[in-house]
Amino acid sequence: MSKVIRVELGARSYDIHAGTDLLGSCGGVCRELQLGSRCLIVSDSNVAPLYGHVVRDSLAEAGFQPAIFIVPAGEESKDPLTLSLIYDEALARMLDRQSFIVALGGGVIGDLAGYAAASFLRGIRFVQVPTSLMAMVDSSVGGKTGINLPQGKNLVGAFHQPSVVLADLATLSTLPDREYISGLSEVMKYGVIQDAEFFAFLEKKAGKILARDPETLERVVARCCELKADVVGQDERESGLRAILNFGHTLAHAIEQVAGYGKFLHGEAVAVGMAYAAILSVSAAGLPGEAAERIINLLGKFGLPVSVKGLNWNAVRKAMQADKKNTGGAVRFVLACEIGRVEPGIEVKEDLLEEVWNVISQ
Amino acid sequence: MSKVIRVELGARSYDIHAGTDLLGSCGGVCRELQLGSRCLIVSDSNVAPLYGHVVRDSLAEAGFQPAIFIVPAGEESKDPLTLSLIYDEALARMLDRQSFIVALGGGVIGDLAGYAAASFLRGIRFVQVPTSLMAMVDSSVGGKTGINLPQGKNLVGAFHQPSVVLADLATLSTLPDREYISGLSEVMKYGVIQDAEFFAFLEKKAGKILARDPETLERVVARCCELKADVVGQDERESGLRAILNFGHTLAHAIEQVAGYGKFLHGEAVAVGMAYAAILSVSAAGLPGEAAERIINLLGKFGLPVSVKGLNWNAVRKAMQADKKNTGGAVRFVLACEIGRVEPGIEVKEDLLEEVWNVISQ
Repeated sequence: MSKVIRVELGARSYDIHAGTDLLGSCGGVCRELQLGSRCLIVSDSNVAPLYGHVVRDSLAEAGFQPAIFIVPAGEESKDPLTLSLIYDEALARMLDRQSFIVALGGGVIGDLAGYAAASFLRGIRFVQVPTSLMAMVDSSVGGKTGINLPQGKNLVGAFHQPSVVLADLATLSTLPDREYISGLSEVMKYGVIQDAEFFAFLEKKAGKILARDPETLERVVARCCELKADVVGQDERESGLRAILNFGHTLAHAIEQVAGYGKFLHGEAVAVGMAYAAILSVSAAGLPGEAAERIINLLGKFGLPVSVKGLNWNAVRKAMQADKKNTGGAVRFVLACEIGRVEPGIEVKEDLLEEVWNVISQ
Repeated sequence: MSKVIRVELGARSYDIHAGTDLLGSCGGVCRELQLGSRCLIVSDSNVAPLYGHVVRDSLAEAGFQPAIFIVPAGEESKDPLTLSLIYDEALARMLDRQSFIVALGGGVIGDLAGYAAASFLRGIRFVQVPTSLMAMVDSSVGGKTGINLPQGKNLVGAFHQPSVVLADLATLSTLPDREYISGLSEVMKYGVIQDAEFFAFLEKKAGKILARDPETLERVVARCCELKADVVGQDERESGLRAILNFGHTLAHAIEQVAGYGKFLHGEAVAVGMAYAAILSVSAAGLPGEAAERIINLLGKFGLPVSVKGLNWNAVRKAMQADKKNTGGAVRFVLACEIGRVEPGIEVKEDLLEEVWNVISQ
């Protein structure tokens, strides 16, 4: 049982499968895509023991020669050193231009393994098998890949679309609570930026969602993928529309950087960033106060943070300035006009930036 | 005075300018392309002292904020460490997504700086200013960028098209003889694979070419760029036709690897590889013996090597097997049927491979 969402990108179009029992179908799906026989599964020390053998066996049964490379779990692995170890393994396993990489794990693995695939031999194909909610609804869709540098996140990377995405909802059952909840902030984001009805659905089904009810989850994940696929299909390389996906992310990136990678999960930082953007939106984009309240309330209902303590404003402000999405110096925000509709590129006055920071950081 | 060749790649189309006095026009050309104000010129310790200030001044006069980053001359700089130093410099200079990189130098600089541009912030624009014959006629055209790993050349990289190529023929006057002659092997290659008339022109004008006569050179460089642009326009990502550009390169890559990077210049290895491919072609692709002789004679006329000493056949054979352009194990060659026409993907019998090796390595 699964839903299939098509990402329309001309010659680079691909399917996202969202459902259960998809890990075991990996080999069959790859065979249909006529991928070369050698492949490297890249996974991490949390996910590989749980699901590595299922994917490997499925690939082997379908006639592939799968090897598996396991990196330490955590954001620290999304670095140049780990990337070079993947290259070494790919060379040792004699991967060629027809070979492919399978990214089995959360967002870190998808970004890292995806970038390895984008750059190895100037680009080989890869398959996304996201095992976290965050990866399913966000990072595995759209072809963004990359690694971090000491100076900041995702400073090096490529747009490289996967050949297929297999989002097996059964893997969410083993996800730690904090990770799962973190993913809900990106889920909510789609409601805020594109779909008021979906936002209302999330409010109504918050209990079932927190209980990880498979039926509800399939609907949630599929809808998020549809919404993201629609944006990505219109703006693959983030030259325009795709910017709306950064709702809440300008502050989130700054918080993550100033607090140090790993203090906050990405989704937690995004939750705080969305609370911040919601309040900014009331003053700077005409968002009704009640709508901002609904956003902040739903964040709270999901157990996501809506404020942050102990961070220095000047440091945060400077980090927002340096965010790579800024062009030519000015900090611009994606702000909401109403639930379901946002506008990118809004400049916000300095006073207001700090004033709202004081609200969410007391 | 310059010729303009258009590389047709849809949204990624760009112009190649071949002529004199182009370095000083760099700023104006970049302004027309509406590139962002910050830019990083990447050059090497040979080229920067000669031409760095001309390009920098031209960019500054046109209103850009150019910084210059100089790497040690030589293939050794095409490595992950130097790449990371370019990222550091780009970050220190606060390059953003609108910024661009100028690759001022030979093939090493073009590949390295081009790959930095391809991967920094998931891709920023770049301008190729090739200063070697090899870079003008080959590496600066077509968007191949990349770095070497200890295991082999160009194992990591991206297809990333420049925004414009400025081939200033005046820079060839300062090129050391050995470098200049090395570039002539790629020039010859275009004649062999695509254009019998151009090959005859090279035979006739060999003297003027060796004397670096500007008028002859403009014609030579422009024709090579046209021929390569035509191939690249039909097959940007080397999935088919582009393979013909590898005439002579299967053995060349193996020779470079076995001898150790830097022993041979790339063009020298290609010259030996073309001699090898020409002789193979007589037995395996129906090339008339006189045509093979013409190829070998012209290599000799240009002062290029047609044989190699002191390399172990087993090591060379193994390196050809590992060449990244091979798919699924078999070694395939681009071979000539006549001067001006080649066929890719020809499998050659083991006996013949070794027999012809013995001819060119006695």
